[in-house]
Amino acid sequence: MSPLVNKQIVLASRPQAEPSADNFRLVEAPVAEPAEGQVLVRNHYLSLDPYMRGRMNDGKSYAQPQPLDQVMIGGTVGEVVASRNPNFAVGDKVVGMGGWQHYLLVDGHQRGVLQKVDTTHIPLSAYLGAVGMPGVTAWYGLVRIIAPKAGETVVVSAASGAVGGVVGQLAKARGARVVGFAGGADKCRYVVDELGFDDCIDYKQHPDVRALSAALKAAAPNGVDGYFENVGGMILDAVMLRANAFSRIAMCGMISGYNGQPIPMSAPQLILVNRMRIEGFIVSEHMADWPEALKELGTMVATGRLKYRETVAEGIEAAPEAFLGLLKGRNFGKQLVKLI
Amino acid sequence: MSPLVNKQIVLASRPQAEPSADNFRLVEAPVAEPAEGQVLVRNHYLSLDPYMRGRMNDGKSYAQPQPLDQVMIGGTVGEVVASRNPNFAVGDKVVGMGGWQHYLLVDGHQRGVLQKVDTTHIPLSAYLGAVGMPGVTAWYGLVRIIAPKAGETVVVSAASGAVGGVVGQLAKARGARVVGFAGGADKCRYVVDELGFDDCIDYKQHPDVRALSAALKAAAPNGVDGYFENVGGMILDAVMLRANAFSRIAMCGMISGYNGQPIPMSAPQLILVNRMRIEGFIVSEHMADWPEALKELGTMVATGRLKYRETVAEGIEAAPEAFLGLLKGRNFGKQLVKLI
Repeated sequence: MSPLVNKQIVLASRPQAEPSADNFRLVEAPVAEPAEGQVLVRNHYLSLDPYMRGRMNDGKSYAQPQPLDQVMIGGTVGEVVASRNPNFAVGDKVVGMGGWQHYLLVDGHQRGVLQKVDTTHIPLSAYLGAVGMPGVTAWYGLVRIIAPKAGETVVVSAASGAVGGVVGQLAKARGARVVGFAGGADKCRYVVDELGFDDCIDYKQHPDVRALSAALKAAAPNGVDGYFENVGGMILDAVMLRANAFSRIAMCGMISGYNGQPIPMSAPQLILVNRMRIEGFIVSEHMADWPEALKELGTMVATGRLKYRETVAEGIEAAPEAFLGLLKGRNFGKQLVKLI
Repeated sequence: MSPLVNKQIVLASRPQAEPSADNFRLVEAPVAEPAEGQVLVRNHYLSLDPYMRGRMNDGKSYAQPQPLDQVMIGGTVGEVVASRNPNFAVGDKVVGMGGWQHYLLVDGHQRGVLQKVDTTHIPLSAYLGAVGMPGVTAWYGLVRIIAPKAGETVVVSAASGAVGGVVGQLAKARGARVVGFAGGADKCRYVVDELGFDDCIDYKQHPDVRALSAALKAAAPNGVDGYFENVGGMILDAVMLRANAFSRIAMCGMISGYNGQPIPMSAPQLILVNRMRIEGFIVSEHMADWPEALKELGTMVATGRLKYRETVAEGIEAAPEAFLGLLKGRNFGKQLVKLI
């Protein structure tokens, strides 16, 4: 066959503050034939996630920065189209870190680089969301850090997002009262009506900490026992004002500060006053918990007890704008890019 | 005998911001004869502690506010001078919450209200410091929250204080590198030369977070794995800039904010970036750990392996000024008031 052409998006430059489409560049490259042991995957969906914003910076963080002029990092699901590896056959559906590109060529013997997935009961794209990294992130922070007891109140920011929506549904399944924060009436309706949260606060209607805290007091009259933090800033301050004794905060993301602006915590003395525990975590450092998490998440999705929504951008060329929209909360649920 | 007169200090008014001597009032009251089951104690030493500042406020906190016009709360050691309780004899040395007063009359059957102590190998006053509430506070935060491994670096603020000094010595005993923060060259010399810390930073020589952080980088070249927080504010910010992955902060006090001024945490995103755990605690809520803690602390004091210093004010009339001095860091080690 004539050589396949791979469309790829690379990081062209690092953002000074807010990123723009100029920071990305679309390139084309020929796809090599698989060597012995290698597998060639045609990516079907690319996952866009907030953590990618951090990788675009050059500063100290928990992960290496995304190198310039190389294919942007990203989770993908796809189908094996050529294989010289006995563990993978043409037609296998796989999940991996395929990056912002059409084709992924990898050594299939490398542990964990490609996972075969079963799409009989679970849609392929769900392996990038509720049954993938975002789902396990939700599971770990909720189950391992917040560990809610029945009757406790759990609060989740970015509640309509890929992580937040799962957090709330897992907390409901454990008997907690669940309150979300989301941006806009549509998202709040979805969070309550479709995801089954007890209440949802539209943070856009509450311009300051005082108003957010008052809204939370109404929605969580018994105070807050657990908070799953995806955003930081004013919502964190408002939640801390309503935190109960021995409450727990799982710190998963602080998207409000990803562009480098300072986002202080106003009243850290509340950690002491309320004997709180605040814990930051990165789900990729807790691989031992993935099987237990994926088992619960997969079962719930397959049986219709875990709901999610996807926003799908069409074509790799649309990825940069879709990513910028994600950072501004324009997506609704899991942000994907359809690559085929 | 003619009725004994009890000198007492009551809370006369609540401070608006910084407290003053006017907030206290010395009163006299007759001492009643012990009824059946009661024990009369002559207090020898009163303990002054930062937590008392919080009790002077009326706001929401982990403890009830100190009621106005009643004897100020406080830990005491003393001697039984009259007893109608078979468990206590005249001459017994006891520790309890005797308050800012000369005499304490209590029901000796009430669990935990009075503890007999052995002064054969341990000085009576030590039961208010290294072998009392401050010592157990140090032990709990270090052992149960920070849990340092040999070779890790532990940082302690208010390092020359009753709690901080014990934290550092317990951490050294566990093989950690220990760095203190203290105010002034004298205190720093004491922390290193007498208490055996590896290094001590005089925070008064470092006017901002950048300077504090640079000093800490020099004193803790491998970063910070555990931080025992007694003060809050700039020192907390500086420590967080040097925090290692998976570091732990035991939040015990935030004396810099006790007068109500805001003390934000500048960069809470570091909790996520460094996957930190921050935990506030109140030692009185962990009574199950006291026996283990007191056993280690008592043995170390009795064998000379746990050192401490006391600042002793003479006479109950001196208690208010001594307390105000404590809040400004004028004491050196454990602040006591000698009542006899």
